[in-house]
Amino acid sequence: MTMLRNNFIIKPIGYVKNTKDKETLRYSNKSIEFDMKTAASQKNDLIISEIIINEEHAETLDGIEEFSHLIIIFWAHKTPEKARQIKKVHPGGLKKMPLKGIFSTRSPIRPNPICITTVRLLERKDNILIVDRMDAINNTPVLDIKPHLRYYDVPHNVKIASWVNELMNEYAKLYDRLKRNFNFK
Amino acid sequence: MTMLRNNFIIKPIGYVKNTKDKETLRYSNKSIEFDMKTAASQKNDLIISEIIINEEHAETLDGIEEFSHLIIIFWAHKTPEKARQIKKVHPGGLKKMPLKGIFSTRSPIRPNPICITTVRLLERKDNILIVDRMDAINNTPVLDIKPHLRYYDVPHNVKIASWVNELMNEYAKLYDRLKRNFNFK
Repeated sequence: MTMLRNNFIIKPIGYVKNTKDKETLRYSNKSIEFDMKTAASQKNDLIISEIIINEEHAETLDGIEEFSHLIIIFWAHKTPEKARQIKKVHPGGLKKMPLKGIFSTRSPIRPNPICITTVRLLERKDNILIVDRMDAINNTPVLDIKPHLRYYDVPHNVKIASWVNELMNEYAKLYDRLKRNFNFK
Repeated sequence: MTMLRNNFIIKPIGYVKNTKDKETLRYSNKSIEFDMKTAASQKNDLIISEIIINEEHAETLDGIEEFSHLIIIFWAHKTPEKARQIKKVHPGGLKKMPLKGIFSTRSPIRPNPICITTVRLLERKDNILIVDRMDAINNTPVLDIKPHLRYYDVPHNVKIASWVNELMNEYAKLYDRLKRNFNFK
């Protein structure tokens, strides 16, 4: 059982290249906080990204273009080491949301800052994947890539916490305000 | 940019407890292979599992019971170090399937053996989650837990490789044979 006490070493397989330089959700004052100014300065998650896969793994991508959607596993590298100790956050970094345990949120700040995002594959050029809706900033290390499969990844009769819908509404309002005030597209 | 060359250290947050002691898909002869004998000896992915979360993270689970489905990120710890060098496999470990790059498959044997599986949460008892359809064997280290959210995790207009349907058919045939020959439920 000593195995279970062991740590594991992960070597990134590549990284993200896009024009999003800062997280809109950031670590501040022992919690996470939605950063309105950063949100105003970029187009958020609609940015087209390149995923640059290390040359040694180019062949490991073969066949990927037969899938329209990929699950990208990445490391939220801007998470400070001490932030990994946090147990609860206000989801979305909005103080008006109720405090919830990190594992019941999608916060990038978590004990192991591993994030997953499902993206549309627009094109593969050798070791480069061009994708949209990649929810990660420029230079983010990528750990793994998998095809999205309905059988594995889409459950039925799903129930979610009511705060998720509240958060979506709050974000919609925030982005409406950004559009009006900052010429945000 | 040296950051990108760095490795990351992952500390498991808990482990899986169930009655499935061996992988049905295993590393053999520089590839993966579906192990019929192991499949015959267990009920595969319909097993109820416990996910035992380390005590230090019990509070980090708060609010999780408001979700019906969770994404479990785990480490396929039976993947030998040398197996992480493999670039292509026959999906599902079946020789009749075409050779594909690891990143276009869900093989547990991959450069970083990180797997994700979406499970139904049946019950939470403090630091223990009781789930079904956990596609991992006994003692598997768990790295992270997230709520399944339709908005993030369910894309539209999904296209998959044709071999995936072939593989599902082959597996259906194999399990039919197991039911007839091994009193497999």
